[in-house]
Amino acid sequence: MSVLPPGSTIGILGGGQLGRMLAMAAARLGLKCHIYSDTSGPAFDVAAKSTVGAYEDLAAVRRFAEGVDVVTYEFENVPCETARAAEAVTPVRPGVKALEVAQDRLVEKQFIAALGIPVAPFADIDSDASLASAAATLGLPAILKTRRLGYDGKGQVRLASTTGLTTARSEIHGAPAILEGMVGFEIEISVLVVRGIDGEMCFYDVPHNTHAHGILDTSSVPAPISACARARAEEMAGRIAAALGYVGVLAVEMFYCGETAPEPLIINEIAPRVHNSGHWTTDACAVSQFENHIRAVAGWPLGATTRHSDAVMTNLIGADVEAWQRLAAEPAAGLHLYGKHEPRPGRKMGHITRLKTKSQG
Amino acid sequence: MSVLPPGSTIGILGGGQLGRMLAMAAARLGLKCHIYSDTSGPAFDVAAKSTVGAYEDLAAVRRFAEGVDVVTYEFENVPCETARAAEAVTPVRPGVKALEVAQDRLVEKQFIAALGIPVAPFADIDSDASLASAAATLGLPAILKTRRLGYDGKGQVRLASTTGLTTARSEIHGAPAILEGMVGFEIEISVLVVRGIDGEMCFYDVPHNTHAHGILDTSSVPAPISACARARAEEMAGRIAAALGYVGVLAVEMFYCGETAPEPLIINEIAPRVHNSGHWTTDACAVSQFENHIRAVAGWPLGATTRHSDAVMTNLIGADVEAWQRLAAEPAAGLHLYGKHEPRPGRKMGHITRLKTKSQG
Repeated sequence: MSVLPPGSTIGILGGGQLGRMLAMAAARLGLKCHIYSDTSGPAFDVAAKSTVGAYEDLAAVRRFAEGVDVVTYEFENVPCETARAAEAVTPVRPGVKALEVAQDRLVEKQFIAALGIPVAPFADIDSDASLASAAATLGLPAILKTRRLGYDGKGQVRLASTTGLTTARSEIHGAPAILEGMVGFEIEISVLVVRGIDGEMCFYDVPHNTHAHGILDTSSVPAPISACARARAEEMAGRIAAALGYVGVLAVEMFYCGETAPEPLIINEIAPRVHNSGHWTTDACAVSQFENHIRAVAGWPLGATTRHSDAVMTNLIGADVEAWQRLAAEPAAGLHLYGKHEPRPGRKMGHITRLKTKSQG
Repeated sequence: MSVLPPGSTIGILGGGQLGRMLAMAAARLGLKCHIYSDTSGPAFDVAAKSTVGAYEDLAAVRRFAEGVDVVTYEFENVPCETARAAEAVTPVRPGVKALEVAQDRLVEKQFIAALGIPVAPFADIDSDASLASAAATLGLPAILKTRRLGYDGKGQVRLASTTGLTTARSEIHGAPAILEGMVGFEIEISVLVVRGIDGEMCFYDVPHNTHAHGILDTSSVPAPISACARARAEEMAGRIAAALGYVGVLAVEMFYCGETAPEPLIINEIAPRVHNSGHWTTDACAVSQFENHIRAVAGWPLGATTRHSDAVMTNLIGADVEAWQRLAAEPAAGLHLYGKHEPRPGRKMGHITRLKTKSQG
């Protein structure tokens, strides 16, 4: 396909903060955005056009796709049928395959393992018997996770001992699941890989991610890992992106287990979209993850991922955002608020990226 | 007045690229924008709401002002009556006074000179006789400039010798004008000062500006001037901002005449708005001129003006923009396209900011 010239329209499925930041990045390049979402959201205020419609209304999705030059998405739980309906009319990037793989933890782990890339030990759980058997094989503690629709720690049950086994599946309403063995890791990191339509790839520096209550709390660059580990992490993420025929930004979350561990890096999960752990790129890089995603899906040359500063991104969750005046007064920080009305507990309301003079590479 | 919380609406008079970049900066802070412009323009695609209306339709302007929490403007030729109509309903920042001064070259020069700040020698021209007399006093060459509505070299006639005197006024249709004596300068610079509602001020690093065909071509930081000259330039700009009771970003263009000149710095003109010579701040500073203007007019704390990189901003004028694919492929550069359809000669279509590792403080 050809390169989309300035003035073209990017269709975005999903109207949350990621769609909002994608739309702002597109505008910087003279590209318009049309948002399609099942509810009005933060992205609507910054897009040239917005449509509220059900993702299951395939006729409406088709009309939306007919009016844009390429379709992308800001969340991985876009129904595959929705993406396929759009794809029948106009290119969808990243493609449907990335959705199929990322929407199902079992499929995802099998896909990555088949590439010869380490994942946490896992087993398919569809009955009490398979759970008991997997618990015996993988050992406890372990985590029971629904195959679909889990995020930010939802749809997960931690099994500390065999006494929890009997109730665990009912806690996830008997949904198809996997049991995941515990991995002894030092820190969590993520790789943000950008892949262009010609297969060209570039990588942002690897952030060190910390979580609180199952939600990303901070992402810091540079992560305290060796250049060798970083190169290895990039190679793994790049291999996954290539195997998916991916176009855009792919986030690959990994456990870093230490330089001397048998497997220094183990894949946790992938997100086929721009990612919270890459928000610092807006403030610390010439071209942000959002702009590079837009560049990739529009067929443009990828932008420089080099960073000019060290950075610590901190999420503003729920009531955290009430401190906005104090945060706005901080020196050398980029404050980002998503325009959401109600600061409900656990809701991502914004983030702040604190910059420092660059310390390395 | 109180601080406008996230979710508030900024009204912007004018819908061009400056309004567009202001609206994007406001969105970053969770603030909405409503654009009011006499034609649909680049800002419309990124604002929560837009209205097309004549600036002279004061009833429409009043309705617009009633629906927003503060009004600002992106161009200095907003009719003062328009600003006054809005001000009767809601705060207008920067105020009407900045418009009154900046819209008339004679008033502007008198205002600045009355502060004891050097300007190029000038004379009020309202007749052939006053022109002949001024030419004799100031000497030739000199430049005849209309008092109102001149920008990017328009409304100006260069007088090389007395032979041009007879036709000069008819070239500007006999409009009220000033004659401006030539200043021997080394380079042109500008000061971008941000002034908050409490009178707090901060300054961006001073860019060195070059022009081509009367239009800004490049702005580079740092400018090749001493720390002493920079401090002096800031002091002059700050004094002007304070005298105007200014709130927001004010651009003060200056001639730098060398460290040993009798007057090292002479004011060229002021622009009561974000300014083309400050576009590099988006790519090279934690907080851009656009965001700081929004912060100021919303009553927020001002953001850090420190820059993390050296930068050269180059305007893309007219057909320059046709090279967008090559420009997009440059490393370590921020490309900005304004979403304008027709690349007419002389039209500002976008800009590119090339970043380098920072060389000095």
